[in-house]
Amino acid sequence: MTETIRTIDALRSRLAWSRMRGRTIGLVPTMGALHAGHAALLDRARAENDVVVVTLFVNPTQFNEAGDLAAYPRTLQADQGVCNQAGVDILFAPDEHEIYPREPHTTIEVSGLASGLCGAHRPGHFRGVATVVAKLLLIAQPDRAYFGEKDFQQLAIIRRMVADLNFPVEIVGVATVREPDGLALSSRNRLLTAGRRKAAPAIFEGLRSAQALAAQGETDSAKLRAVALAPIELEPELQVEYVEIVDPESLEPVKRLAGEARIAAAVRAGPVRLIDNVALQPASQ
Amino acid sequence: MTETIRTIDALRSRLAWSRMRGRTIGLVPTMGALHAGHAALLDRARAENDVVVVTLFVNPTQFNEAGDLAAYPRTLQADQGVCNQAGVDILFAPDEHEIYPREPHTTIEVSGLASGLCGAHRPGHFRGVATVVAKLLLIAQPDRAYFGEKDFQQLAIIRRMVADLNFPVEIVGVATVREPDGLALSSRNRLLTAGRRKAAPAIFEGLRSAQALAAQGETDSAKLRAVALAPIELEPELQVEYVEIVDPESLEPVKRLAGEARIAAAVRAGPVRLIDNVALQPASQ
Repeated sequence: MTETIRTIDALRSRLAWSRMRGRTIGLVPTMGALHAGHAALLDRARAENDVVVVTLFVNPTQFNEAGDLAAYPRTLQADQGVCNQAGVDILFAPDEHEIYPREPHTTIEVSGLASGLCGAHRPGHFRGVATVVAKLLLIAQPDRAYFGEKDFQQLAIIRRMVADLNFPVEIVGVATVREPDGLALSSRNRLLTAGRRKAAPAIFEGLRSAQALAAQGETDSAKLRAVALAPIELEPELQVEYVEIVDPESLEPVKRLAGEARIAAAVRAGPVRLIDNVALQPASQ
Repeated sequence: MTETIRTIDALRSRLAWSRMRGRTIGLVPTMGALHAGHAALLDRARAENDVVVVTLFVNPTQFNEAGDLAAYPRTLQADQGVCNQAGVDILFAPDEHEIYPREPHTTIEVSGLASGLCGAHRPGHFRGVATVVAKLLLIAQPDRAYFGEKDFQQLAIIRRMVADLNFPVEIVGVATVREPDGLALSSRNRLLTAGRRKAAPAIFEGLRSAQALAAQGETDSAKLRAVALAPIELEPELQVEYVEIVDPESLEPVKRLAGEARIAAAVRAGPVRLIDNVALQPASQ
């Protein structure tokens, strides 16, 4: 039975008890509205740790649009059910005042990695993400923390922050879970109209086409990008924000494929912003 | 006998062993050139913790002048002697590559508190301080960390960072240690010529005059400041950078004393920058 904890002090006391007994702690930071993508994170954390903590906090400092924050789905009871099902030990669901008792003065900036891709379209977003993830890591002090590869830029930024600041934690990236038609699972998918939901799989279709072309030997990013864009641009319900090919660690744009790269896309389906990405492996020589 | 440790891995292994046995850890971050001011930090840490760790790292990212970094005194052997004398368990003295194995992308900013006083004269200094202190706290994971009140702005910034980011550590401020003539101890004092060394006590003399006047009932910051400036401006070897009266927590300028405040000064004695501060307690009504 998952225990729901609301305060930092209560969580720390509970975890100190486990730590004293030499038990390992796995942390899964989420904003709730848990779906099968999150469940994959929970399963992985469950398999690798003695104690699994899921955090549920819709962090206001990472929303750059008030409408997006207001619309973000909140489904605590269902989330508790998902945690129970997955054998999660603790669901940490603090209110906003517990995390930000006064106006915060301290922010964490990961330069370079945060400026392109989603960062260019969501000013301040990754500063909010890095800062709240640092807080959650310092509150729970886990041995491992789990993040989905769907948010690839977020994962790269968190890895870099953890390395640069010497956080004593292992960051584990978990592969994207998809609907049968290829759409990456996201809490925002439930906000799509039927028509947009039907159009949305074109994003993964485009990314997969680029992946296939790279595997056949194409190394020119412009050509790979054009192939990815084609099916998305056929859908009048979808507006491309970006499709880019980047280095998987530095997130610098890649002009010509040498080693592994990542192709990432952000697409608007009406008011809903969808993101996805896949690995590009160049053909072996 | 103090054990000198050079690598993060070795320090973490050593401290994990202590932590598993339930021992408390006190951390004293320094840039070396240890003097009696540091010794007061070591004594306090020794009294309050099972294991005392002193870090010695001249952090390049907090120097905004290359000349200041090059001139900063480096006295490892003497520092080992001071640590031994004080019963320090571990001296952590990493080289630069151990702390910054590649160009760091991650920085911590404490807005508001870092812009005035020394921050206005040393661009980027407190970003460097906050970031390296966060790293040292994450490397050693101490129960308590000790900082001198002489660096009052630094202490306020670190307290704020620790609170905002939920670092699980108690920050302990330790009173400034002075020469018999009042000059605050500093590693930079040994860089003073004889003439400037003779002039330097005027800084504390000025601050103490303001303190006495406040205790007599004066609440006007302009008058308190003028009294502090007078003896310093009499010394041709000293050039005032600032003398300011601020709130001890927010570091906002205070126009009229209500509760406790802090008067802080930075003064140049030739190429050497000296800082000092004292509490201002308004007269009880």
